Amino acid sequence: MVNWNDKLAGRTTFMRRSAIREILKLTQRPDIISFAGGLPAPELFPVERIEAATQEIWRRRSSESLQYNTTEGLTELRDWIAARLSRGGVNITRDNILIVSGSQQAIDLVGRVLLDDGDHLVLESPTYVGMLTAWRSYQPRFSVIPTDADGLIVDEYLETVLRQKPKLAYLMPNFQNPQGTTLSYERRVELVKLLAEYDVAVMEDNPYGELRYSGDALPALYELEAQQRGSTKLDGLVVYAGTFSKILTPGLRVGWVAAPEEVIEKLVQAKQGADLQTSTLSQILTYEVCKDGFIDGHIEQLRAVYRERRDVMLAAMERYFPEEARWSRPEGGLFLMVTVPEHIDSGELLKDAIEHKVAFVPGTDFYITGGQNTFRLNYSNAQPDMIEEGIHRLGTLLKEVTVRQVV
Amino acid sequence: MVNWNDKLAGRTTFMRRSAIREILKLTQRPDIISFAGGLPAPELFPVERIEAATQEIWRRRSSESLQYNTTEGLTELRDWIAARLSRGGVNITRDNILIVSGSQQAIDLVGRVLLDDGDHLVLESPTYVGMLTAWRSYQPRFSVIPTDADGLIVDEYLETVLRQKPKLAYLMPNFQNPQGTTLSYERRVELVKLLAEYDVAVMEDNPYGELRYSGDALPALYELEAQQRGSTKLDGLVVYAGTFSKILTPGLRVGWVAAPEEVIEKLVQAKQGADLQTSTLSQILTYEVCKDGFIDGHIEQLRAVYRERRDVMLAAMERYFPEEARWSRPEGGLFLMVTVPEHIDSGELLKDAIEHKVAFVPGTDFYITGGQNTFRLNYSNAQPDMIEEGIHRLGTLLKEVTVRQVV
Repeated sequence: MVNWNDKLAGRTTFMRRSAIREILKLTQRPDIISFAGGLPAPELFPVERIEAATQEIWRRRSSESLQYNTTEGLTELRDWIAARLSRGGVNITRDNILIVSGSQQAIDLVGRVLLDDGDHLVLESPTYVGMLTAWRSYQPRFSVIPTDADGLIVDEYLETVLRQKPKLAYLMPNFQNPQGTTLSYERRVELVKLLAEYDVAVMEDNPYGELRYSGDALPALYELEAQQRGSTKLDGLVVYAGTFSKILTPGLRVGWVAAPEEVIEKLVQAKQGADLQTSTLSQILTYEVCKDGFIDGHIEQLRAVYRERRDVMLAAMERYFPEEARWSRPEGGLFLMVTVPEHIDSGELLKDAIEHKVAFVPGTDFYITGGQNTFRLNYSNAQPDMIEEGIHRLGTLLKEVTVRQVV
Repeated sequence: MVNWNDKLAGRTTFMRRSAIREILKLTQRPDIISFAGGLPAPELFPVERIEAATQEIWRRRSSESLQYNTTEGLTELRDWIAARLSRGGVNITRDNILIVSGSQQAIDLVGRVLLDDGDHLVLESPTYVGMLTAWRSYQPRFSVIPTDADGLIVDEYLETVLRQKPKLAYLMPNFQNPQGTTLSYERRVELVKLLAEYDVAVMEDNPYGELRYSGDALPALYELEAQQRGSTKLDGLVVYAGTFSKILTPGLRVGWVAAPEEVIEKLVQAKQGADLQTSTLSQILTYEVCKDGFIDGHIEQLRAVYRERRDVMLAAMERYFPEEARWSRPEGGLFLMVTVPEHIDSGELLKDAIEHKVAFVPGTDFYITGGQNTFRLNYSNAQPDMIEEGIHRLGTLLKEVTVRQVV
């Protein structure tokens, strides 16, 4: 037997399996109601449209769909995304767009292109665990900015941090994973002003932005930032990422980065080394399904279904959860986050929950430190009656453990 | 305008666009006969079988195909690959297999998991440019081992290098890109013995192995290595990579790594951070197309067509190339390499060639140093009459420049 331990790279010390993806495996037992995953509802996948698009592809462009394509990605898909991102007034072109294999790859490539070992990063807390998975291997120094119901708290503390000239800030302004909270308009304006003042780049990760169920849509950071600079181009401090995973299907693995051209150039070079290109078939299929306005009607349908599920979950939580529990009230996206009294460890709680045939994701993975008394719930991947039943089970358990500790 | 240069990570200095992929863009003019790419022949894609498989997928497993799956990859595809790789007597299981997004990702992930900055690597020269693209950012120290018609030269020099305990060796034993040469049986046995003696790991990259047109198939390094250790398991020094890109289609982006379980565990963690998983649809489609022996019949067909194209190219070279030119005579794969007199720079030659409406890839990208008087020709992606015509054009040019210099 060979000893591989002494052959592994140092960065593997900072790699670990995502607890969420591992928990997902455990909770696939059919008797468990799982709020653990981040899965879109498969019954809403537009299978008929996808099937029709596939037939059209085999008829019209089969060879092209199965052959290599450029690293940058399918031209017509890049044009389509660029046009969509330009609707707010910033003139984005295909040269600002790189197609990636899901937005996790956007995060990974941005890290490769921007992060040196030990760089200083600014994060909201809690934050997206997949970003931590990708970027921890650079052993960065994290400055953790607290959040409330309006997202990242933009105040003197943040300014103090930005004054230190960190390399990069990362945030999800819309329906953030894990909390589902949204950065308010006032804070966006103020944040963008501060980033410009201290010349700090930001990765604006927006996988859920189109899934809004209530309240008004807010401008993206890249839009506000261009506006403040008086620019009509994407040539500022924002690197923006989006994905088809939540509005179409995750299984095709198609996302994008929108960024200034010189950043895209480096991201293209990094992607050549990483995987040459994203699946040609996935890209053509995504384009053929989305075009001609289909995706907008489909998103409306998703919003209606997910809005109901969110409402059912929130109502059930009001009914069944003990008064000691608090939780976020998202205006969109797939998640909300629950905070329970500090003496309750949600990792331990999960074991009891699985006994009660209900599952969630413990919060610690979303925090650099702390979060033991928090957990994330997903409401997109269960029918309303299952949500009601699952929250009932979880509420019963929460009341037990809350009382148990008080006694 | 923001100055991004001072924000880029240091490793971006070592990134560059692949000259090959850039040349590919230039040579897509229809009047140019291009031997530059590494494209499989699109007219051989099994479109009917793929179309039938797709229809079956939409009928039987549409939701699954469009949903997230595990990072490790589709279980039945991992089982299928494991069974195929076990045919030589090593007992490989699904736990030895990670599905990746094409074998370029295999190289990238192996780098992440095994390479620290400045590590010492052993390469054959010339070697695969995509590996250099991926691994150069670790700023490794390269030990370059010369090759001849039997592949890597396994001699005292190699032993001297291995004695220094490099981190990793990388090679393509079969129909190597760019030369098309194959490591002989005797050298494989000797190489594996030396690697074991000095405890040096090797990445055996085998994208073309199934495309053999003449000569006898040789055992893989992982097979010889297990045999030498008296093991029946994949628990030695070899990390093996393969792909469906050359035997099925490259556009689906499906490849695999086969390695000892503890290496796979780390590769899975690295892949979670890189892109979560490979396209579910691509994996299911690949499995459904390949299963029940279809792929073996398909490979037979590819072999017949590519064999003829190789033979046509070699015969045309005999006819049209000046006697000063030398070239490899591959037993399989997609490429061969030409060496011209040292005073001819193949980068300059390419400009003349494009004037003559024929294209190739200059050799320098495949070398750490040198190779200016070499270039790579691909014979899989042109019909025989076009090969004949393209080699005629190139031979005419070569005779011109050879004479021009002699005069």
